[in-house]
Amino acid sequence: MTYCIGINVNEGMIFASDSRTNAGLDNVNTYSKMLNYAVGDRNIVIVTSGNLATSQAVYSSVKKDLESKNPQTSLNTCENIEEVASYIGRLTVKHSSPQGINEEVLQLGSSYIVGGQIKSQKPEICLVYPQGNYIKPSDAKPYLIIGEINYGKPILDRILTPQISLGDASRCALISMDSTIRSDLRVGPPIDFVVYKTGLVAPLYKKQFDLDDPEYSNITTSWSQSIIRAFETFPRFSWEK
Amino acid sequence: MTYCIGINVNEGMIFASDSRTNAGLDNVNTYSKMLNYAVGDRNIVIVTSGNLATSQAVYSSVKKDLESKNPQTSLNTCENIEEVASYIGRLTVKHSSPQGINEEVLQLGSSYIVGGQIKSQKPEICLVYPQGNYIKPSDAKPYLIIGEINYGKPILDRILTPQISLGDASRCALISMDSTIRSDLRVGPPIDFVVYKTGLVAPLYKKQFDLDDPEYSNITTSWSQSIIRAFETFPRFSWEK
Repeated sequence: MTYCIGINVNEGMIFASDSRTNAGLDNVNTYSKMLNYAVGDRNIVIVTSGNLATSQAVYSSVKKDLESKNPQTSLNTCENIEEVASYIGRLTVKHSSPQGINEEVLQLGSSYIVGGQIKSQKPEICLVYPQGNYIKPSDAKPYLIIGEINYGKPILDRILTPQISLGDASRCALISMDSTIRSDLRVGPPIDFVVYKTGLVAPLYKKQFDLDDPEYSNITTSWSQSIIRAFETFPRFSWEK
Repeated sequence: MTYCIGINVNEGMIFASDSRTNAGLDNVNTYSKMLNYAVGDRNIVIVTSGNLATSQAVYSSVKKDLESKNPQTSLNTCENIEEVASYIGRLTVKHSSPQGINEEVLQLGSSYIVGGQIKSQKPEICLVYPQGNYIKPSDAKPYLIIGEINYGKPILDRILTPQISLGDASRCALISMDSTIRSDLRVGPPIDFVVYKTGLVAPLYKKQFDLDDPEYSNITTSWSQSIIRAFETFPRFSWEK
């Protein structure tokens, strides 16, 4: 399994993905699930969850199309993020149904969060389904998640608003990832993490975190301590001494 | 679906269950999922998740056995909580496979958290599976959850220890329930909630919370405010102004 987060707030975008892949609990491996492209007039990030062979085939096609002299479509030819989402959708449907293997069903399907900013357009994020179609987040909840989405959702719902600072949204994403890693063996480090500020092509911040990375562990430790402190300040029941 | 929590710490036990049942999103109803029995030398609490017909049939059998003059087994005849778990396990296997309806598979299965204190024994909690067998929690993580267990798990993992006070454990249970209710439509109020202090037969505290109950909303509001305050105190990234 996997856990990936895409956040799109007024100040910019944040993407995070874990690196664990597994085929059963006895076959665990580590792969980056993030594709980062920040060249010329655009930055585009893709993170993925689902069948690893399908996701890798899609990323490989994306890279081939970027290297091709005359691609029908590539990350460079797309006019906006919705076109990128639609392009990734077509690729994933194609690769999840390889001839002679899986023509009838989409059991080899993968999901994607596709986001970025092209030229001076508004930054956008989209969730691409295994069936190739896609959605955008609601205005009130400016995030998308794929994979093992349950454990880390409450903190996103309580904190994220379009007005939140990029720093707070980044810490929120890392805490959400940490809660998921602690609760589900199918989600594991290192964490690929990238922050884009609206209007800048190059990433503002890009890092791969291991759990013992000081920047990461400072945040998660502060979070644990804050929770314990919070419990000390809560209103008491009448039956407590 | 459902969300139920059983906590067993040194000071006592806490049980919480939501009340939403659904057969599809267009058929939602409200039932209490908690059975409370505190009589004579014992208190026993059962909470349940799964097929409502099965769970109701089990609770009905439990009540019939309590009223019967010569029951083979009842909550009164069990010598310890493991016997209660085993009794509930037998009942649920029986009622989930009614003759002529469901003899082959356990698709009508239900799970249970069974807990309590009998005589001067140590309080115990057990998770009874639809197959009728059961487990106890580990010493390090003194809780059991059934139903929609993902959203509310991180806070339990971060806070609960055997040494925690009954008050803090109660607030932790209510926050875990609140996070689940906010994230999953299949879990809803009112919340049945009961606290037992080790050594006392009668409950220390017993209440059915609606979301606008002041005691409940004071805790969840304090929690939301603490989280936002916590974000203000976190270490900053070097790229933040």
